[in-house]
Amino acid sequence: MNKTFTLKNVYVEETASVVGPTEGAGPLGDLYDVVIPDEIYGESSWEKAERKMLIESIGLCMNKAGYEPADFDMILAGDLSGQLISANFAARDLPIPFAGIYGACSTFTLTVGMGALLIEGGFMDRVIAGASSHHETAEKTFRFPTELGVQRKATATWTMSGAAAVILGRSGPVRVSEVTFGRVVDYGIKDANNLGAAMAPAAFDTLERHLKNLGKRPEDYDLIATGDLGSVGQIMLKHLMGDSSMGSGNLTDCGLLVYDTRQDTHAGASGCGASACVFSSHFFPLLKKGHIRRLLLLATGALFGLTTAQQKESIPSTSHAICFERVEES
Amino acid sequence: MNKTFTLKNVYVEETASVVGPTEGAGPLGDLYDVVIPDEIYGESSWEKAERKMLIESIGLCMNKAGYEPADFDMILAGDLSGQLISANFAARDLPIPFAGIYGACSTFTLTVGMGALLIEGGFMDRVIAGASSHHETAEKTFRFPTELGVQRKATATWTMSGAAAVILGRSGPVRVSEVTFGRVVDYGIKDANNLGAAMAPAAFDTLERHLKNLGKRPEDYDLIATGDLGSVGQIMLKHLMGDSSMGSGNLTDCGLLVYDTRQDTHAGASGCGASACVFSSHFFPLLKKGHIRRLLLLATGALFGLTTAQQKESIPSTSHAICFERVEES
Repeated sequence: MNKTFTLKNVYVEETASVVGPTEGAGPLGDLYDVVIPDEIYGESSWEKAERKMLIESIGLCMNKAGYEPADFDMILAGDLSGQLISANFAARDLPIPFAGIYGACSTFTLTVGMGALLIEGGFMDRVIAGASSHHETAEKTFRFPTELGVQRKATATWTMSGAAAVILGRSGPVRVSEVTFGRVVDYGIKDANNLGAAMAPAAFDTLERHLKNLGKRPEDYDLIATGDLGSVGQIMLKHLMGDSSMGSGNLTDCGLLVYDTRQDTHAGASGCGASACVFSSHFFPLLKKGHIRRLLLLATGALFGLTTAQQKESIPSTSHAICFERVEES
Repeated sequence: MNKTFTLKNVYVEETASVVGPTEGAGPLGDLYDVVIPDEIYGESSWEKAERKMLIESIGLCMNKAGYEPADFDMILAGDLSGQLISANFAARDLPIPFAGIYGACSTFTLTVGMGALLIEGGFMDRVIAGASSHHETAEKTFRFPTELGVQRKATATWTMSGAAAVILGRSGPVRVSEVTFGRVVDYGIKDANNLGAAMAPAAFDTLERHLKNLGKRPEDYDLIATGDLGSVGQIMLKHLMGDSSMGSGNLTDCGLLVYDTRQDTHAGASGCGASACVFSSHFFPLLKKGHIRRLLLLATGALFGLTTAQQKESIPSTSHAICFERVEES
């Protein structure tokens, strides 16, 4: 149990990301493939806008790599909406077998991990892993409809509008080399405005197991990036790491890279799109260019729902770890 | 693309099911492991009752097989609730890596298919695949809260209260021999009270691909069981099969096996629990005893959500096929 899988034959071929205007105005704004002009994106609902973003990211990724739907064995995708409606409806447009995957904001590394093992196991040659979130659809599901104008807590993250897709295949510039799936951890946090605190113990649990299973230390990676702990969760993770024997170096968080602190987005970005878009637009090019050689990405997810929040339950969380490595030219 | 996977090394070791009182009063009543006395099951909400049923089915399955949590590499599970709260919260109680899987009522065969490939690929030795649904939690999500007393349409299925878990491993009495993952099919049906009609084309799409990929015909299986098409959907599937060259023999539907027609449950049982519980309590023993030797189970899922129904969208559907074979004594 609690294994870490080391892979030899799985690569990221290509990535694509589509984000909202707030994200486009942030520090990574120039790196995304598409920045949509407004949150509704010409649709009649936020949900349809999110779906359109996910469909566009998948199509763009295929186009960039020069593939057609017939070149893929499976799509693995998920989102935050009830019943995964963004992913399900996006998959409707493609004649490719589809698996809906839900790990809340950890969905991206869960889809990549599952997809990578399906390729490494010899079953599939090429899959799409994708994830999306939308500020308006998520805030109304998990916190308050933004139309209410409820004041946001300083510990609250800002669900990012963003969809990203990556193509996993048998060759490419970046290798998927290590996979550790997360357990579900619950430290009793009940505040949906402080998800970073709920998720930090889950990130630590997976990181600790990942390193222990491989006999590695944090400094064996050029960068360890959590998904969307935000500023509060990251401080907690650093404390947990500092209290262990592993130290707390070379740590970043996707949620902290998306916005400028002047954007009034509080604790940082969250949502399935956060780790997916930051990996696709930022880390993947850094790996390709050799600026970083080994990235450990730990997307984190708060596995609660609207109903459990209403029923005053705590917030179980998880985190799935993937190591991405630059393929060295020989 | 659109492959069917043939497996050599994956077996169903054990199963367990926990169902509600209406299901317990049905034709399979004596076969379930646990029939709970009422839908609330001593909890303070329907959601907590569903979770308790899923936790109980997983624990019971482990106990029947004589395992402890440390004997498992992963749990793959899902349910119909927004954000998969039954599965997520059930996994919280177990120190086993967890993947949330969503395929609506097709979830059971999706979890079995994914879990089986993880074992066949050599990554894992033993996993739990599980699924649950609850009449009250689902009806209020997808149709009407039952407290309203809205008259049910004759084409409507009855979401079953049921949770089931199966243990997949490297030996056992029943082999998982074939896996075909479903594509997302949408024939434009918009009536959430007629999910059978929405799902029948998806079942046909997967069945046709499965048979074609393997060069087989329906009569190569002792039984072909769809998940929960119900009476209306089954008629449609038979029409689709009859119009093709494959004929329409040896077909059954899990949804039609759960209730007596005198139980006023209309078109039959639906929900993630339907195929999971009918397989666990009925088909698995039949396979073990040799009464059937080859079962093709096609759980079917309507991939819509509360929000898409409110936004007047059609209902995309899918179906994932698994062949279970009796292990012949040599």
